[in-house]
Amino acid sequence: MTHDGSGFFDRISARTAENYPSDIHKLFASAGIPGIISFAGGAPHLGELPFDELAEWAGDILTGQGGLALQYSAAQGLPVLRESIVSVMRMEGIEAEPDDVVVTAGSQLGLDLVTKTLVDPGDVIIAEAPSYAGGLGVLASYQADIRTANCDADGVIPAEVDELITAAEGEGKPVKFVYTIPSFQNPSNTTLTEERRAELVEICRRHDVLIVEDNPYGLLSFDGVANRAMKADNPDGVLYLGSFSKIFGPGLRVGWMVAPRELQDVLVVGNEITMLNAPTFNQLLIARYLSDFDWQGKLGQMRELYRHKSRCMLESLERHMPPGTTWNEPDGGFYIWVTVPEGVNTDQLAYDCVPRGVTFVPGTAFYRAGGDRQMRLSYCLATPDQIETGIAAIGTVLTEHLAGEGASQTETAAAR
Amino acid sequence: MTHDGSGFFDRISARTAENYPSDIHKLFASAGIPGIISFAGGAPHLGELPFDELAEWAGDILTGQGGLALQYSAAQGLPVLRESIVSVMRMEGIEAEPDDVVVTAGSQLGLDLVTKTLVDPGDVIIAEAPSYAGGLGVLASYQADIRTANCDADGVIPAEVDELITAAEGEGKPVKFVYTIPSFQNPSNTTLTEERRAELVEICRRHDVLIVEDNPYGLLSFDGVANRAMKADNPDGVLYLGSFSKIFGPGLRVGWMVAPRELQDVLVVGNEITMLNAPTFNQLLIARYLSDFDWQGKLGQMRELYRHKSRCMLESLERHMPPGTTWNEPDGGFYIWVTVPEGVNTDQLAYDCVPRGVTFVPGTAFYRAGGDRQMRLSYCLATPDQIETGIAAIGTVLTEHLAGEGASQTETAAAR
Repeated sequence: MTHDGSGFFDRISARTAENYPSDIHKLFASAGIPGIISFAGGAPHLGELPFDELAEWAGDILTGQGGLALQYSAAQGLPVLRESIVSVMRMEGIEAEPDDVVVTAGSQLGLDLVTKTLVDPGDVIIAEAPSYAGGLGVLASYQADIRTANCDADGVIPAEVDELITAAEGEGKPVKFVYTIPSFQNPSNTTLTEERRAELVEICRRHDVLIVEDNPYGLLSFDGVANRAMKADNPDGVLYLGSFSKIFGPGLRVGWMVAPRELQDVLVVGNEITMLNAPTFNQLLIARYLSDFDWQGKLGQMRELYRHKSRCMLESLERHMPPGTTWNEPDGGFYIWVTVPEGVNTDQLAYDCVPRGVTFVPGTAFYRAGGDRQMRLSYCLATPDQIETGIAAIGTVLTEHLAGEGASQTETAAAR
Repeated sequence: MTHDGSGFFDRISARTAENYPSDIHKLFASAGIPGIISFAGGAPHLGELPFDELAEWAGDILTGQGGLALQYSAAQGLPVLRESIVSVMRMEGIEAEPDDVVVTAGSQLGLDLVTKTLVDPGDVIIAEAPSYAGGLGVLASYQADIRTANCDADGVIPAEVDELITAAEGEGKPVKFVYTIPSFQNPSNTTLTEERRAELVEICRRHDVLIVEDNPYGLLSFDGVANRAMKADNPDGVLYLGSFSKIFGPGLRVGWMVAPRELQDVLVVGNEITMLNAPTFNQLLIARYLSDFDWQGKLGQMRELYRHKSRCMLESLERHMPPGTTWNEPDGGFYIWVTVPEGVNTDQLAYDCVPRGVTFVPGTAFYRAGGDRQMRLSYCLATPDQIETGIAAIGTVLTEHLAGEGASQTETAAAR
């Protein structure tokens, strides 16, 4: 990645210049090195999807409805898909009508649209620490003043959110929304408890602040019991972002949102201005998958697979991590969040793991500041064998770092 | 569309509030009324696409490469598609490498990304008058100071662009780019002459201003001879936006851009922040269409069809428009741009045509100010019979308006 400061690059917008990714961003490319074991991405396991049926449905759609599938469509999304989405959300306690749903080209673009629609430069957004790197990237790209409330084992700490809102009010700066991933959070894989959900909703109601509930992992509980969405009990105060990326396939780029009523029209118009409509063919294909297939049964198999992989990774961690290293035990989702002993820097650890054939995302990617003793390990895509091999390699490099044998900063900087 | 000013709506961003669409936007919905003859959209004719082959290719992709097709992919786009895109652009004289191409989820989102990346609020962008309504919407959504240079029959007038750049320079306001649709422009269907292309490039080079060349219609010349893109002779000064929407199908939402080298990395990162990647499956399907099918032959059939429809519409206009009404004669593209006699307002005309079973986009949608004697008639989607019936209806309503028999403003306002 070069940006030599010449020509037009000198004149990029402030929102872009302020948020140009740090060097650590380059590390993400290491996940693409052939043969490397990657615990870096949040890519779902797709090997069990019914590809033959999908091929048949895609064929049906193109031969039977090709003129619809390949044409522009309504910015709000196709009714047939919005109807299915309502059923999906009902599993999380949300009672919505198809007309409440806005289909987006992925929930990442949904968050982008929400931020574009609501946030002026300098407006305060409260996010979780840690939080999804890509989500923080979107918020920063609109020059939000991002303030963070810490998470503990029960999810984000409501009292901290309350304090941050109160402080911003004291400064006369509006808090545009609280950005939360309440279930199987990325990266910490904590789930906000029921009590805290109610508390957070109540705090935001009292301060009249919108909650943006980003929920890609909500249906990935290992016990198969879906958490009740915050949107369910507070439809007017929560904007819900949904995704098919983790429960079906991200390559179709289809997600959705359900906003408080008074925001829906402006979001539909914004979706139209930004990209006209989410891909039509993809909407039809997903609608078919949801209506003609036992997708919940498939999801049950996926959950079991992810549970198994998480157990493999936990066992490998027990075997290979040096004492003083800690981690969570997942109940769902994709990630194990590891804290290494003092004296080790996980950015440095990540660089040094690449030549040893394994990659992960260091904690700094998930914080506005800090995170240099954390790392996110994804168990979603690797095989059990890869998990054992990769964790063993990380354990070796970590042990070397603890013994003061890590690659020197100078060597590594040169290798970047 | 309601926005009652309650709750969170009061707190939308300035960029959104300033650009909330006017009432005329509501008119676009009339294109969806069952049975209405629509000259409103820019939707391509898809009836001749090889749906059976497309079904077969989609099936092959899902059964053979399903794990790739449904997965996240690189923010820059798949190499296999970028290679095909290079061949497409070669038809317009552009010599690019696959690595120069950035795939976007449609060229509308490409323009959004370019604007987000380059434009701070108040930055000057020079656009054409008239210009693509959706493009103006994107520019406005980032609070650009949009200044417009007029078009005549040969496209935008370079001397006006020069004057506008000079004036902005005099104010100390940077011009971030000149936004032009040089071939079969939407809505005027003018094509910038070769001489003017060279002149515009030279002016922008002299002022060190980027040209954004939006070219969805470049391969839709009725004589089959592609215009040479401005990018071809000025690779460092032009950012090219390409689209499959008019030459294949917009329902897949795939377009691309080729930027000056020093802007490419920041645009790829921006694409990733905004939406991770354009839909993977769709990229594979388009790559297959371009490699395994005589798509240029198909495009030749499409061009002939559009030429025929444009001729039908010209003949209908001759038959039914009252004296003093003028229009262009298309050499390609999708539109006839009509100017009605003085005293008629085309916004009003458009409203009054809906109950007569026909709809079009009035000129005001394509200007920052003005356009109330213009209308854009799309011949791309209607059948020849619909064209005759629809133009006859417009002619009748226009004749009534000229005779002072139009629906009163009061009546129409109530009907909105």
